[in-house]
Amino acid sequence: MGKKLWGGRFGKQTDPLVEEFTKSIQYDQKLATYDLIGSRLHVEILRKSGYLSSAEAQALLSGLAYIDEKIETGSFAPGGEEDIHTYIQNELQKKVGDLALKLQTARSRNDQVTFATKLYAKASIKAMLFFIAELEKSITELAEENVDIIIPGFTHMQHAQPVRLKDYLWAYVEMLERDYTRLDFISKNMRITLGAGALAGTPINASEYNVSASKVLKHHRVFAEALNVSATSNSLDSVSDRDFVIEIISALSMAAMHLSRMAEDLIIWSTEEFDFVEIDEAFCTGSSLMPQKKNADSLELVRGYTGRLYGNLVSVLTMMKGLPLTYNRDMQLDKEPLFSSFEIVSSELRVLQGLVKTLKFNREKIQEHLEDESLYATDLVYYLVDKKVAFKQAHTIVGRLVKCSLDRSIPIKAMPEELLKSFSDKIVKKEIVKLFDPLTSVESKRSVKR
Amino acid sequence: MGKKLWGGRFGKQTDPLVEEFTKSIQYDQKLATYDLIGSRLHVEILRKSGYLSSAEAQALLSGLAYIDEKIETGSFAPGGEEDIHTYIQNELQKKVGDLALKLQTARSRNDQVTFATKLYAKASIKAMLFFIAELEKSITELAEENVDIIIPGFTHMQHAQPVRLKDYLWAYVEMLERDYTRLDFISKNMRITLGAGALAGTPINASEYNVSASKVLKHHRVFAEALNVSATSNSLDSVSDRDFVIEIISALSMAAMHLSRMAEDLIIWSTEEFDFVEIDEAFCTGSSLMPQKKNADSLELVRGYTGRLYGNLVSVLTMMKGLPLTYNRDMQLDKEPLFSSFEIVSSELRVLQGLVKTLKFNREKIQEHLEDESLYATDLVYYLVDKKVAFKQAHTIVGRLVKCSLDRSIPIKAMPEELLKSFSDKIVKKEIVKLFDPLTSVESKRSVKR
Amino acid sequence: MGKKLWGGRFGKQTDPLVEEFTKSIQYDQKLATYDLIGSRLHVEILRKSGYLSSAEAQALLSGLAYIDEKIETGSFAPGGEEDIHTYIQNELQKKVGDLALKLQTARSRNDQVTFATKLYAKASIKAMLFFIAELEKSITELAEENVDIIIPGFTHMQHAQPVRLKDYLWAYVEMLERDYTRLDFISKNMRITLGAGALAGTPINASEYNVSASKVLKHHRVFAEALNVSATSNSLDSVSDRDFVIEIISALSMAAMHLSRMAEDLIIWSTEEFDFVEIDEAFCTGSSLMPQKKNADSLELVRGYTGRLYGNLVSVLTMMKGLPLTYNRDMQLDKEPLFSSFEIVSSELRVLQGLVKTLKFNREKIQEHLEDESLYATDLVYYLVDKKVAFKQAHTIVGRLVKCSLDRSIPIKAMPEELLKSFSDKIVKKEIVKLFDPLTSVESKRSVKR
Amino acid sequence: MGKKLWGGRFGKQTDPLVEEFTKSIQYDQKLATYDLIGSRLHVEILRKSGYLSSAEAQALLSGLAYIDEKIETGSFAPGGEEDIHTYIQNELQKKVGDLALKLQTARSRNDQVTFATKLYAKASIKAMLFFIAELEKSITELAEENVDIIIPGFTHMQHAQPVRLKDYLWAYVEMLERDYTRLDFISKNMRITLGAGALAGTPINASEYNVSASKVLKHHRVFAEALNVSATSNSLDSVSDRDFVIEIISALSMAAMHLSRMAEDLIIWSTEEFDFVEIDEAFCTGSSLMPQKKNADSLELVRGYTGRLYGNLVSVLTMMKGLPLTYNRDMQLDKEPLFSSFEIVSSELRVLQGLVKTLKFNREKIQEHLEDESLYATDLVYYLVDKKVAFKQAHTIVGRLVKCSLDRSIPIKAMPEELLKSFSDKIVKKEIVKLFDPLTSVESKRSVKR
Repeated sequence: MGKKLWGGRFGKQTDPLVEEFTKSIQYDQKLATYDLIGSRLHVEILRKSGYLSSAEAQALLSGLAYIDEKIETGSFAPGGEEDIHTYIQNELQKKVGDLALKLQTARSRNDQVTFATKLYAKASIKAMLFFIAELEKSITELAEENVDIIIPGFTHMQHAQPVRLKDYLWAYVEMLERDYTRLDFISKNMRITLGAGALAGTPINASEYNVSASKVLKHHRVFAEALNVSATSNSLDSVSDRDFVIEIISALSMAAMHLSRMAEDLIIWSTEEFDFVEIDEAFCTGSSLMPQKKNADSLELVRGYTGRLYGNLVSVLTMMKGLPLTYNRDMQLDKEPLFSSFEIVSSELRVLQGLVKTLKFNREKIQEHLEDESLYATDLVYYLVDKKVAFKQAHTIVGRLVKCSLDRSIPIKAMPEELLKSFSDKIVKKEIVKLFDPLTSVESKRSVKR
Repeated sequence: MGKKLWGGRFGKQTDPLVEEFTKSIQYDQKLATYDLIGSRLHVEILRKSGYLSSAEAQALLSGLAYIDEKIETGSFAPGGEEDIHTYIQNELQKKVGDLALKLQTARSRNDQVTFATKLYAKASIKAMLFFIAELEKSITELAEENVDIIIPGFTHMQHAQPVRLKDYLWAYVEMLERDYTRLDFISKNMRITLGAGALAGTPINASEYNVSASKVLKHHRVFAEALNVSATSNSLDSVSDRDFVIEIISALSMAAMHLSRMAEDLIIWSTEEFDFVEIDEAFCTGSSLMPQKKNADSLELVRGYTGRLYGNLVSVLTMMKGLPLTYNRDMQLDKEPLFSSFEIVSSELRVLQGLVKTLKFNREKIQEHLEDESLYATDLVYYLVDKKVAFKQAHTIVGRLVKCSLDRSIPIKAMPEELLKSFSDKIVKKEIVKLFDPLTSVESKRSVKR
Repeated sequence: MGKKLWGGRFGKQTDPLVEEFTKSIQYDQKLATYDLIGSRLHVEILRKSGYLSSAEAQALLSGLAYIDEKIETGSFAPGGEEDIHTYIQNELQKKVGDLALKLQTARSRNDQVTFATKLYAKASIKAMLFFIAELEKSITELAEENVDIIIPGFTHMQHAQPVRLKDYLWAYVEMLERDYTRLDFISKNMRITLGAGALAGTPINASEYNVSASKVLKHHRVFAEALNVSATSNSLDSVSDRDFVIEIISALSMAAMHLSRMAEDLIIWSTEEFDFVEIDEAFCTGSSLMPQKKNADSLELVRGYTGRLYGNLVSVLTMMKGLPLTYNRDMQLDKEPLFSSFEIVSSELRVLQGLVKTLKFNREKIQEHLEDESLYATDLVYYLVDKKVAFKQAHTIVGRLVKCSLDRSIPIKAMPEELLKSFSDKIVKKEIVKLFDPLTSVESKRSVKR
Repeated sequence: MGKKLWGGRFGKQTDPLVEEFTKSIQYDQKLATYDLIGSRLHVEILRKSGYLSSAEAQALLSGLAYIDEKIETGSFAPGGEEDIHTYIQNELQKKVGDLALKLQTARSRNDQVTFATKLYAKASIKAMLFFIAELEKSITELAEENVDIIIPGFTHMQHAQPVRLKDYLWAYVEMLERDYTRLDFISKNMRITLGAGALAGTPINASEYNVSASKVLKHHRVFAEALNVSATSNSLDSVSDRDFVIEIISALSMAAMHLSRMAEDLIIWSTEEFDFVEIDEAFCTGSSLMPQKKNADSLELVRGYTGRLYGNLVSVLTMMKGLPLTYNRDMQLDKEPLFSSFEIVSSELRVLQGLVKTLKFNREKIQEHLEDESLYATDLVYYLVDKKVAFKQAHTIVGRLVKCSLDRSIPIKAMPEELLKSFSDKIVKKEIVKLFDPLTSVESKRSVKR
């Protein structure tokens, strides 16, 4: 049980169960780096506004730098404190003595926590964008390596029309691009403010909060330049708002959903029955009972973790529902879902990036499945349309032709001309047999903007 | 059971239970207007690409205009058809005869449905933005009318510090502004494309899909100018994607969450015990048993409907999880949640807009609660900080002072100077008694950017 | 705008938007039958406790019977009333005059709504249990018709070991049995009470509420005997409780999840690539573009509707979160999710019951896939264990054997004895070749209780 | 990276990212105790069926007992292994040598994990039932200590009728009783089986699986007698089923929802404005900025954690949606949500149990609020009904009386007889003034079964 940031008014010890129930240091220590940045900016603000002398400010900055180094070097061991902010405050006091007590001037944890969490989120989005781009690159390379492969395209899991494998793979790049744009937009629009106090603002002038982060944080790995901090425009909203957490988990939920679809496609394609693709052993695991098993567990976990993301989203949305203004302790519970969402999706992206690189497509088996005549039925329709049959009539004619082929078990290509003509006198056998060809089929589609 | 858009290949009737289970016309008739727009553009595309002569195109456009008028005038009665697209197709055939059969050329419902749903979404967002702006206006007017009121600010539902009512109300405007920005961004970034076909594209050149909607739709109420249509950039993704639905329901869920918080605040404020505000009778209902009751049911429904929005979000997210590419019939189930989300949130905004206009604040009762000395404890801390006491020491001193006041049931203002000095010799009674004043308190906070 | 059950205290008309926003008659008219049962019991209670004379009671019962008949015969048209309870009250007054005004004695809608909803739920569970049993019957019949079929069993979607199709199908019966048990338990434990009033109870003695429903409801289709009504044991809880709604939607969500798994299995099994089973045309639909398509849309909707159930669950759970006691208007929003959940799952059960009946398994294709040697690898392990090789060693030996077979592209059965012995000298070729047989494999498993 | 339970067939190392992504030992070590019980039973089964000699069985049991003791004494440090089952297997091998390799005979992790998780769940439910009972006891004691207090009852957060505090508190006991019953039912109906193997059963006879756990586990803390194990009745279902996880999280979600309502009531009651109750300091925390703050953070976290439970439920439901039979790796992701749900709700129960014990009700303030005349309006209605005014007329009369009292700011009790009579000539002033009394009001309600 560590020293607390409050307590003067209390005549009793906190109940140990409550201490345990309310503390957050077991997870919010992830915010240490970001809380230190906030403290460094706050020192600068206090100095500008006269609450600290230059010497005091310098001493505090040295103390904070010392703690930062401890974190970097791993000799950082928060223990029984209530939260990471209390831990840092106490460490600072050990280092610089009672001067540390001035750091809390005009500062509230409500504001401090939001600030640190937003910085964590910005840094994590930056990393996520990198991982998305890497996966896009792997998929693009895979598409290029297999640029000539045509596969049966599916709707409703049934053979529809032939499509290029590269277009199929590229569909996932399109999804990832949307994920990228969404996260990027969220990061760019996140307002990083200070000065809200607990809810009512502070006695420091708004103008003092316009800190040039690049001045204070020169040489910082992530935020040396990108960080603009300004005074809050509504202090009550600043301490009550968790929109940014929901926005991020929502965007990550969509990303996880996209990845679950890719996983599902690959799981199905790598069944014994489909056998379109082989997943590399390095991405599979075995069975304790059945020695032959090679299971694509990574893909199944990617699919299954989607639920975790949706759950995280529901968790934070529910928490915020009907919460009166302003800050309520419920809001502390935004962190675990946010951290978990970032960690899961970034793991998924990295695992898939490796897995995609090693995929081997089985050209022979794919070719076999392309022989299914039904894949070319739509091309027959267009053939008739080009001969001036109205589209829906052509559709009906070819539908009947397919039915006849199934009922009598004769391939259309093998039907005698006479039988073909009984469906439409526009059909010329030697013309239509050429249509049952994957390349002819995909090349006849010209509507996609390249 | 209406005529279908497919069937040639089938030798059997659809089972009536399946007919009932799969049909969507009971809800997708909301898309009629938007589907007609799509058809008008498709006529233009078919004309440009030579599938229709100018005369045919003209005849089809007349037929479509006739159906559009039926919708406008309400003499529109879809019945047993599978979906609204089939209904319109059948109506068109009644009007223009077999020429209607050409309209399906190079067109798939997969693409058609997405197109119409996106148009519906764009139009609905436009209306939503208007309702958001209207509610913001009402709140702003309310804030201005009550510009001088100061209220106890709450954190953890406990008295914290005095705040201006206008700032409190303005916190909701900030939330609404974020909702506005989010929805606006979604609408602007929604890509309206055609040409995906069922999944593989169509034989029509991509360039033909760059239709100037303003040319085709001149005089249209909503889309005369705003609509840009182009060819798809990935046909597989186009028919598989429902990101826009999830994005919208997610943004509306956040809006509903904001409104639930406003509702909660007003419900609490209008209890007998708080009595800060009176909700107008026109927005309340009574009880069948207790004749005195005046319940703010509108606000409770606003709070309760939040669950409906979250449920809609979970519904669509779950539906999309692990869905293999490309189109699957599951995706039909995006519509009811989308429609319901738009309808609920727009009703909420409109009801609240009226309710907010009629709110009457109870100045006397608020004033009473401002007399609680604890609201000014933080001001006492700043007082000591200005006298060079380190912040955390000042915090502890005032904490003890508050405890003493509670333990001995003496207001701080009534304590003898000597007792005050026993906490800190910096305390001067005649100075601190001035601090227990709402206006002094709020005016001393200068950190908020105005 | 109909006459209301309250209003004396109000000086103003309700705002029309609020009227629209708060009314529930568009969906709660489903409760009409059940509300009438409540009214009939309430008449009996009022008579027993002296609030109504026998003649008055008789007159009211006749009036209620008249309305009941109108519902049965379909000449029932609720309109602008606030809810179904108000509609029935108003109809009754039209029929029996001011005597109807006595029916509201000691009665509150809070209690009345819960009562009617619980009756609706009990009746709907009864129907659901019937549909579950019917589907179980269809699956059992299908299993019996195909009792000799053995299929490749899957884990991780990869070939695992041969299993009997009937056991596979029976796994779904086990799930349905759990669904049955759960719903049955909920129905049996649902406490049907009266006497809570608005929240504080009524002046009528508890003992008067112990109504013999069988006396009042003789000849009733559903509830003639099964219904026991008693006085509430805690009136505050009675009007605040929606556990039964959540329990039901949760149980139905699990049922929907089970059905989604069956749907997924059938969708995969009916792909061109698996081709294990054929779905009858009567349960499929086609494509507006691709004439060959036969899509198992019913199954996809079964899969997709799962999200709707989960969403309904989240909707009601969220609504109830943090709701102060006792009744709040939010709770009105339990009905649509409850109704929708019952309707979706019962449709699913009925559609699947028909679909299952018509499934045709493709013995030839299944047989082909059973030739995959890897399905028998575990049997090889047991073979070695029977020869006293420790299990994990046997597992490793067979693992290496499988690897060798894959690396060299030689079936194990085709390996020379010498090569086999190089893995373990316990292997005797003529013994192991017999193991690669589906029937031998499934018959060697004796652990399942039959 | 530890030794694995599989691998013979693999020619490559697992990718380190995949190793990290798929391992579960960081959380499933909670199952160690339960996995050891399964192993002890499995030894007995292998002995009975001849796979192990008595001496071998004895040696394995000793080895398992040794590991069990290590866990009990805390000298248990799983590290880089894939999961807890692998860790225990490896430890056993260290202790008893290659004999350990026989333990995997006819055993699959699919079955083993389900078994251990069910045992964990049964033990956790047992603890949960204890905590529920303890909280019920605290609430009951609180109710008894304050048995004479009457409070304003609320519907829609507005004054409704006076109710006894003990009935209010007892409403929570009713909810907890339902939670108790639900969890107890789940535990009793959980089928603990063995013999499913990976999916297809094992060569061991079903009858050998009917192990008397009490024989094997004599002296076990939790399961010495309660555990009945039998052979699976459908091996495919056994390894595919996670219903028990969903059932439990659903029941715990309802419990959390109940606790969130209690928390909300107490939060509102302890506001400065209500001031009905005081939360003990030991259950509150302070503010880093505002020295006067005493916030009931425990209650806010109880409220906020509800979202976590709902999220856990959504997480597992989503994971199971549309999962083909039988086992898929996705299902590994059931554990964290299950563990987290048990841990959160048991903490909540324990914290609330302590908090409830220390609540102090503020009789004076409550008394003040009971003076609100509107609380007795319904009693006035019953007064008129007793004088033969039809209920709805009486309701309207009193409604007008209340309106008049509000409009003219005259308490009803203070109205001249003449004015009273103008509403109904049945009103006798000296009779009705007695009605404005809390005790008279609550005693007149006789409908609640005691």
